Amino acid sequence: MPDYPKPLSKLIAELSRLPGIGGKTAQRLAFHIISMNDDDAFSMADAIKAAKTELSYCTVCGNLTDRDPCAICSDPSRDRTVVCVVETPRDVAAIERMKEYKGLYHVLHGAISPMDGIGPDDINLRSLIVRLQGENEVVEIIVATNPNIEGEATAMYAANLIRPSGIKVSRIAHGVPVGGDLDYTDDETLSRAMTGRRDL
Amino acid sequence: MPDYPKPLSKLIAELSRLPGIGGKTAQRLAFHIISMNDDDAFSMADAIKAAKTELSYCTVCGNLTDRDPCAICSDPSRDRTVVCVVETPRDVAAIERMKEYKGLYHVLHGAISPMDGIGPDDINLRSLIVRLQGENEVVEIIVATNPNIEGEATAMYAANLIRPSGIKVSRIAHGVPVGGDLDYTDDETLSRAMTGRRDL
Repeated sequence: MPDYPKPLSKLIAELSRLPGIGGKTAQRLAFHIISMNDDDAFSMADAIKAAKTELSYCTVCGNLTDRDPCAICSDPSRDRTVVCVVETPRDVAAIERMKEYKGLYHVLHGAISPMDGIGPDDINLRSLIVRLQGENEVVEIIVATNPNIEGEATAMYAANLIRPSGIKVSRIAHGVPVGGDLDYTDDETLSRAMTGRRDL
Repeated sequence: MPDYPKPLSKLIAELSRLPGIGGKTAQRLAFHIISMNDDDAFSMADAIKAAKTELSYCTVCGNLTDRDPCAICSDPSRDRTVVCVVETPRDVAAIERMKEYKGLYHVLHGAISPMDGIGPDDINLRSLIVRLQGENEVVEIIVATNPNIEGEATAMYAANLIRPSGIKVSRIAHGVPVGGDLDYTDDETLSRAMTGRRDL
């Protein structure tokens, strides 16, 4: 790092701690922030502080929220008989973007991954069981964890935990992505697409 | 943008105003900031504010500084007979990184570009002339504007302005970059490298 004035080198150091932002990019961003007008720069700084102070996790579903229970949990128009289990608040956002699912969510904040030392008690899974004991309306749990080894392991584990209560447990479908190309689809996905075929 | 809680969507909107940061990257950064501990996030926000409030431009050379005159202008060990003219404070940093140049600087904050409506009076050029009239020690001006059309035009214009005062005006050399490959060098650069050849 060259001899920048201290406030500048401090800003560059802070920005380069962000994921995917290296030293060069941090410099470019820092110079841009300095060239912004005061209001815009202060508004960005305040947005960072506000996001940290005003956001928390919903005590019911674990989703990121600015009130408790979150907007989805407290929305009377949502279908309370279905709960979709996802790994992160970003997955909730992805499913909400689709604008088709009207049920509730449960955010695990991770997936079981013995390789990384993350067991069933390190994710938000027990609270789902407790929640299901309290809410008698739930008839189906849709497990929408990621389609990778950790996500599959978590789905299996969750299903085994929930099944004794008699609630139906389903898993989102794996198959060829819409708009994809069979020729470029990996064997495992193609195999799942064949196994999961439906009558036309 | 999906229905994120307001403080989160506000942070994403602020971050996506940065250059090279699109919507998806801004989301990733925002979620990272939320997952940071409070101290780190507040420290980043404060660094943005500090950079905006504590940094200004040196009234002598126009470089970015946290005091006036800047560290370079007020350093008695610098050679006051040479002034290097550059386009931006980042160029100053690049030349300082080399640790060979010991003279002063003059930052233009841009280059003449009629296409973008930027004329000689829109950059920090007149102040260089005023400065040269005040400082009798200067014997050489090294014009280190960028090697593109705007930078060349600015160099020519500056040279014509300064020459009447009898001060020597030089331009940094254009040629094949060290470690480069002749085969991949563009014609214009190669032509400049031939014209600017030196005796061995």
